[in-house]
Amino acid sequence: MQKKTVQDYIRTIPDFPHKGIMFRDVTTLFADARGMRLCVDQLLAPWAGEEIDAVAGLEARGFILGGAVAHQLGCGFVPIRKKGKLPGATFEQEYVLEYGTATVEVHRDALPAGARVLLVDDLLATGGTAKAGISLLERLGAEVVGCAFVVDLPELGGRRALEEMQMQIHTLCDFEGA
Amino acid sequence: MQKKTVQDYIRTIPDFPHKGIMFRDVTTLFADARGMRLCVDQLLAPWAGEEIDAVAGLEARGFILGGAVAHQLGCGFVPIRKKGKLPGATFEQEYVLEYGTATVEVHRDALPAGARVLLVDDLLATGGTAKAGISLLERLGAEVVGCAFVVDLPELGGRRALEEMQMQIHTLCDFEGA
Repeated sequence: MQKKTVQDYIRTIPDFPHKGIMFRDVTTLFADARGMRLCVDQLLAPWAGEEIDAVAGLEARGFILGGAVAHQLGCGFVPIRKKGKLPGATFEQEYVLEYGTATVEVHRDALPAGARVLLVDDLLATGGTAKAGISLLERLGAEVVGCAFVVDLPELGGRRALEEMQMQIHTLCDFEGA
Repeated sequence: MQKKTVQDYIRTIPDFPHKGIMFRDVTTLFADARGMRLCVDQLLAPWAGEEIDAVAGLEARGFILGGAVAHQLGCGFVPIRKKGKLPGATFEQEYVLEYGTATVEVHRDALPAGARVLLVDDLLATGGTAKAGISLLERLGAEVVGCAFVVDLPELGGRRALEEMQMQIHTLCDFEGA
């Protein structure tokens, strides 16, 4: 009987994108039919039976996951994109990176007020992008029911940062180191 | 009875990203539960009953669609990304833009040789990115069973360019103008 876990499908590539970084590569998970299905099923487990109106995903790997999760739920998908990519009127949120800042955007009319939204991404590190995404969804008047990530890097503190916002966080596996 | 078509869910935003461009915005399609489902069902119709081993998607809107289509098929997903984003060893393919060139990449081990792959993206314009994607998939030894797009801009000639490669092309709606 096959016992491979979600974590078993993820490979580590050292020194990408910079020397000293152990990059956790989910493409090997997504490329595998069983891995992808297992991942989507497990990501959604904490919200089984709950009403979810839409899935929001962070560019770009969160789009792959978000498309699949939205399809499983039978709901719509809302992209949270890097600045300058969305054609309509947007809300913007800046967040801090290791060196400098970045900005993400969401369409101002992406969701009706009161929509119950699940935020997904492949990886939780410091939580900076996710916090920016939550902030954007809340500016739309949406209710963020939680955040689901495939990988958690616990040493970087993202889970704690999001839990301090009273957010329900679900991750499928941990890796040590950044 | 509701009769909205896929095309009805797509909005047009003038002068994005540049003056004179009529941008066909699929985010309003993807955000709608019924629109997204209709889109995925119709995209797959020509390949009903055929064996498809994986879906490949072009960054970034093709990731949303590709995640959903792969989930519907119960198969894996392979990202074709802009240069510098994939951590493992890649094949690269340059293609021509209106001004200059761009490069897309795929992981060299993304698929086993002989895998039957469907390529998806939101929009077919000149077909340059799709041709580059097909070329990368063929370098992996994959068999590209076809290409599915939500929107066709027929004046830009992408369908003809891909059909000259003996490729099966499926699009859900046309818009006039670039």
